[in-house]
Amino acid sequence: MLNTLGNFLTLNTFGESHGEAYGGIISNVPAGISVDFEAIQKELDRRKPGQSAIVTQRKESDEVQFLSGIFEGKTTGLPIGFIIKNENQKSQDYSHIQNVYRPSHADFTYEKKFGIRDYRGGGKSSARETVNWVVAGALAKQLLPNDLKINAFVSSVSEIFCEKPYQDLDFNKTERNAVRCPDEETAEKMEAKIREVRKDGDTIGGTITCVVQNLQAGIGEPVFNKLQAELAKAMLSINAAKGFEYGSGFCGSKMKGSEHNDIFNEDFSTKTNLSGGIQGGISNGMDVYFRVGFKPVATLMKPQESVDKFGNSAIVEGKGRHDACVLPRAVPIVENLAAFVLADLYLINKLRKSDRL
Amino acid sequence: MLNTLGNFLTLNTFGESHGEAYGGIISNVPAGISVDFEAIQKELDRRKPGQSAIVTQRKESDEVQFLSGIFEGKTTGLPIGFIIKNENQKSQDYSHIQNVYRPSHADFTYEKKFGIRDYRGGGKSSARETVNWVVAGALAKQLLPNDLKINAFVSSVSEIFCEKPYQDLDFNKTERNAVRCPDEETAEKMEAKIREVRKDGDTIGGTITCVVQNLQAGIGEPVFNKLQAELAKAMLSINAAKGFEYGSGFCGSKMKGSEHNDIFNEDFSTKTNLSGGIQGGISNGMDVYFRVGFKPVATLMKPQESVDKFGNSAIVEGKGRHDACVLPRAVPIVENLAAFVLADLYLINKLRKSDRL
Amino acid sequence: MLNTLGNFLTLNTFGESHGEAYGGIISNVPAGISVDFEAIQKELDRRKPGQSAIVTQRKESDEVQFLSGIFEGKTTGLPIGFIIKNENQKSQDYSHIQNVYRPSHADFTYEKKFGIRDYRGGGKSSARETVNWVVAGALAKQLLPNDLKINAFVSSVSEIFCEKPYQDLDFNKTERNAVRCPDEETAEKMEAKIREVRKDGDTIGGTITCVVQNLQAGIGEPVFNKLQAELAKAMLSINAAKGFEYGSGFCGSKMKGSEHNDIFNEDFSTKTNLSGGIQGGISNGMDVYFRVGFKPVATLMKPQESVDKFGNSAIVEGKGRHDACVLPRAVPIVENLAAFVLADLYLINKLRKSDRL
Amino acid sequence: MLNTLGNFLTLNTFGESHGEAYGGIISNVPAGISVDFEAIQKELDRRKPGQSAIVTQRKESDEVQFLSGIFEGKTTGLPIGFIIKNENQKSQDYSHIQNVYRPSHADFTYEKKFGIRDYRGGGKSSARETVNWVVAGALAKQLLPNDLKINAFVSSVSEIFCEKPYQDLDFNKTERNAVRCPDEETAEKMEAKIREVRKDGDTIGGTITCVVQNLQAGIGEPVFNKLQAELAKAMLSINAAKGFEYGSGFCGSKMKGSEHNDIFNEDFSTKTNLSGGIQGGISNGMDVYFRVGFKPVATLMKPQESVDKFGNSAIVEGKGRHDACVLPRAVPIVENLAAFVLADLYLINKLRKSDRL
Repeated sequence: MLNTLGNFLTLNTFGESHGEAYGGIISNVPAGISVDFEAIQKELDRRKPGQSAIVTQRKESDEVQFLSGIFEGKTTGLPIGFIIKNENQKSQDYSHIQNVYRPSHADFTYEKKFGIRDYRGGGKSSARETVNWVVAGALAKQLLPNDLKINAFVSSVSEIFCEKPYQDLDFNKTERNAVRCPDEETAEKMEAKIREVRKDGDTIGGTITCVVQNLQAGIGEPVFNKLQAELAKAMLSINAAKGFEYGSGFCGSKMKGSEHNDIFNEDFSTKTNLSGGIQGGISNGMDVYFRVGFKPVATLMKPQESVDKFGNSAIVEGKGRHDACVLPRAVPIVENLAAFVLADLYLINKLRKSDRL
Repeated sequence: MLNTLGNFLTLNTFGESHGEAYGGIISNVPAGISVDFEAIQKELDRRKPGQSAIVTQRKESDEVQFLSGIFEGKTTGLPIGFIIKNENQKSQDYSHIQNVYRPSHADFTYEKKFGIRDYRGGGKSSARETVNWVVAGALAKQLLPNDLKINAFVSSVSEIFCEKPYQDLDFNKTERNAVRCPDEETAEKMEAKIREVRKDGDTIGGTITCVVQNLQAGIGEPVFNKLQAELAKAMLSINAAKGFEYGSGFCGSKMKGSEHNDIFNEDFSTKTNLSGGIQGGISNGMDVYFRVGFKPVATLMKPQESVDKFGNSAIVEGKGRHDACVLPRAVPIVENLAAFVLADLYLINKLRKSDRL
Repeated sequence: MLNTLGNFLTLNTFGESHGEAYGGIISNVPAGISVDFEAIQKELDRRKPGQSAIVTQRKESDEVQFLSGIFEGKTTGLPIGFIIKNENQKSQDYSHIQNVYRPSHADFTYEKKFGIRDYRGGGKSSARETVNWVVAGALAKQLLPNDLKINAFVSSVSEIFCEKPYQDLDFNKTERNAVRCPDEETAEKMEAKIREVRKDGDTIGGTITCVVQNLQAGIGEPVFNKLQAELAKAMLSINAAKGFEYGSGFCGSKMKGSEHNDIFNEDFSTKTNLSGGIQGGISNGMDVYFRVGFKPVATLMKPQESVDKFGNSAIVEGKGRHDACVLPRAVPIVENLAAFVLADLYLINKLRKSDRL
Repeated sequence: MLNTLGNFLTLNTFGESHGEAYGGIISNVPAGISVDFEAIQKELDRRKPGQSAIVTQRKESDEVQFLSGIFEGKTTGLPIGFIIKNENQKSQDYSHIQNVYRPSHADFTYEKKFGIRDYRGGGKSSARETVNWVVAGALAKQLLPNDLKINAFVSSVSEIFCEKPYQDLDFNKTERNAVRCPDEETAEKMEAKIREVRKDGDTIGGTITCVVQNLQAGIGEPVFNKLQAELAKAMLSINAAKGFEYGSGFCGSKMKGSEHNDIFNEDFSTKTNLSGGIQGGISNGMDVYFRVGFKPVATLMKPQESVDKFGNSAIVEGKGRHDACVLPRAVPIVENLAAFVLADLYLINKLRKSDRL
């Protein structure tokens, strides 16, 4: 299933940064779910440019319009089509980059692959595609049990890490600062770092941690659709993502089994949770947590050497409005993608035991 | 496509550690490929238990038997069915663990999900499933261009890291030691560490690095089937894998854009390769490299506290023959899985430009 | 792949008769194809209501708007999103049928399946969904070789059959009459029959024959994606279709092998073509021809007994403008669906021989 | 999903007539189903060669061996692998047909498509592939409600039709004669016809009717996976099938709406059932019935003109043991394929209403 997110609950998308609209089709949503449209729009607003001084000031209202599959406020069980119009794609002059390959962008790879490239900005390679994912994920979240919580936050920017374990954080504070780190002190340092880098016309990377709480045991498939594999695939689809780890992650690779094994309590919870809530690809009822690493944005507001398609050297420099650090805007992307993956596996799990037939 | 590896070139598998056989069906292999059966068996032998003193001494001949899709030594374009018989699944006495959940194994999660569990060893959750993947990957490798090289090696065990950049390593040396680390000095330290941990009845984790060289530009899909996303999904399907990163990975999250961007040379190669050979989900012709983190094996050769299915405490202790460190045996799994992912995306890419029609 | 047409070249759709728009996403179209927009619109116009006196007089301009995947007139290889706005969905009063199940409509089955129903007309069960298929098929046709011809025509209405073998028909004449039967004499009789039935407020069924010429040998897959199976599935997706047969069809079931076998000529063409151009699921280079049977439209312009959702008897009568015979408008649906199926299998076939790698 | 039967419940298969074994993998069977192995073997026995004097006398024991996914007699929810060994594939001499294309066989099309052909008999194009489908269908039947009945029977051979409506037939009588027609008088005529044709070295076609009773309302999907479309696709996958019709079928194309519409009773059953139990692609609770047309077998026991791959004329004549009429052996194939399609759609339907979550 190429160009599809999900296995049973599926999302197909379209759209380019300089086309008329983005959009998608969400298939196999059960009928009879009351849709909270405001909740979906709120997630789009969290992802939107121009929310704070530290992100891009580009203007997009990012209003989603549902075209089918919902009747009198409830899902009908039929495909849900939606579009989000592009408002800021005005025919700027792109002739200066038409033949130039920007460093660490997809200009060169798209041209090699397809032999044709929409040179007006990133075209399909633009991270604006993630508006579609946020819509689908925010809707998918409404299929999940009410008490299931998915909280992502910026856990590092550059070398500045949020050192507290997630259990000591108050996720209600994530939205209270522009960086989306629930630890205020760290958030301030991160924000200062982003402002500093931005002043230089430079950009900076970081990591996002996501915590899923109250997920029932049994979610995820045993062989090729393990919960961690589906999450990894979804997260590595985000444009700047370079790495994924869950539970003990890369740290776990330095540990001994006797330190790493999670010993059961009598209620089947575990005393530790280095497993990250997943065993054999299937949730065990403990918190599922994972971390995604993001590289710095490739578009710099200062000149860089590059080449054009004929191999001549060229100078490129970002114009317009770009993010110095995408992490804050990526927080809702991570959360909503996780929601979509979970809802898909959650539905599939309904069919795994015969007593459910 | 549940329970399926790949999008166009696909693998479906079956098998449990204590059943009669493992096996699978590889679909959509082009016709007319001469099959090198020895090369496939060689990859199985690399994964096999009992190869050296530091891995499990369990005996399995792991001989693959092809049942269809190959005629007079060539692929016919039709589904390739294969089986690998289990030889060591003799009905040992499993009554002692029938009702016990082993720590950090999938016993509990399988039982919660399916309401039924094959308690004879890991059942389907056993890493023996990877024999199927090695067969399919080793065959898939034969579809790829001859000059494409896929080399994995153990890059860390516990805190012992291979510090040299991969460019300074001679991959021909990987097979010369039991650990599968091409740097001999490091390999010796790793081996000593594994022996030490094993003597204690304990286990240890580590990382594997994989390098893909001479991959043409254009491989990978732009939205939901990005090269890195497909690799991440495949790698996180391996039983003990906890993390995946490619190119600069989590280190890249600490960098500035001006440090991280890969500047083009006039021949479209890049001066650095922090991107890890992928931009916008598509290979750019530079080396693709990634790292997979593995947790320590959960089965210990010493007593551990646990609970049974009724919530009573129980003591578990590994019996028989188990790996103290799976890393050496995981090297061929990583390589062959990568080969499968690449062959799948390679075939799909053939249809991306109209001049190919 | 639920809610998806095609295996590699795929179409996902959305839309309901009384929603704001229909639309879809066509994925995996190769890059670099010049899109003939007029040709696509022309196919939509052929399907459109109000073309002649014998079809429904409902007004829909049915203009397709492409939102992505095409740049400077050429496909980019990226998902092609499109929408067709509904213009005639004005909030008519539907309260009279809100609780009534119309005979031989999907009102009852939708309500049983989903527990919720869009009672404004057919909702998703409306044949207006086929606008999406015509767009996708008309685009898919542009991927196929130029000399490949797909011609459908009305081969019967009620008991009036076009008795001539298709080889004796001039397909250029199909569009010259309102019924879309290339045999003028038969067309006149059919048209008279439709007018007669319509005057009564009644409806009438018929059959469409489709002929594919100059299709190269090798198209279609050997086991579960046989050319005839894919065509049958597509055709039986059309709302009023009740049957499909290809080649000798049901007549062939009365024949002996010695009569039915198609003997080869020395150039590998066959002396007869009872096989309908397909052997073992794969095209053999001869004409592929098939026939689709359509039941009469369920909406009558005269009163019918029925029941409401509480089991009380009710009288229903079609209001507004409906087709007395859908056959003429179904001709472009059959042709374009066939084009989509063929383009999908055509692309897949490119990967079946290794010398193509 | 190429080479796959089913959408959620899936079957992947392999095997060739002259290879070592057939087999398949059934994925996504719910856990906890008690498997009735005898019932599965019984279905294989019904399809087996050599059951009566009017079918091929080839000997195959056709014993299925399950290799995974079943533990202590119950499904575990994990992939079910199975094989059926070929016993009769002894290396007969095939040199006489190695270069010859047999009329109306797939020899020519396979060679054109794949550039390579297993010339020992039909290879993959052999109808022996249907052993896999019978195993999967017979298992799928065990997922369906007990009271759901699927009965197929031979409804015509040549021009000899079973004229009684299916409601007047006693399906218990189907197995009592070699032809599998429950109307004894007709069965005798059919059997005489088959014997006559066979004496001539010729073959003969016919039709099979299948009736599904007690199917709940709501099964089937509204757009691209309509119940009739899935059935049509499955049936047209059977090697000799040339046509499919359901409900009123091609006869319905001659009717008026006022005759064809099925009027509701107050209990939502319908007074007539020309719809064939399906409206809008979804079952309505009435009987689903359909008819499949089969062409005569292509292998004749008498000489036929043909050509070899170089275009030279050649004479072919069937050797060994072949069916003069496949209809009797196709009855269990039709029934079990229908069971598989229904079980797949039945499982999917469990997720269509939110109150099921």
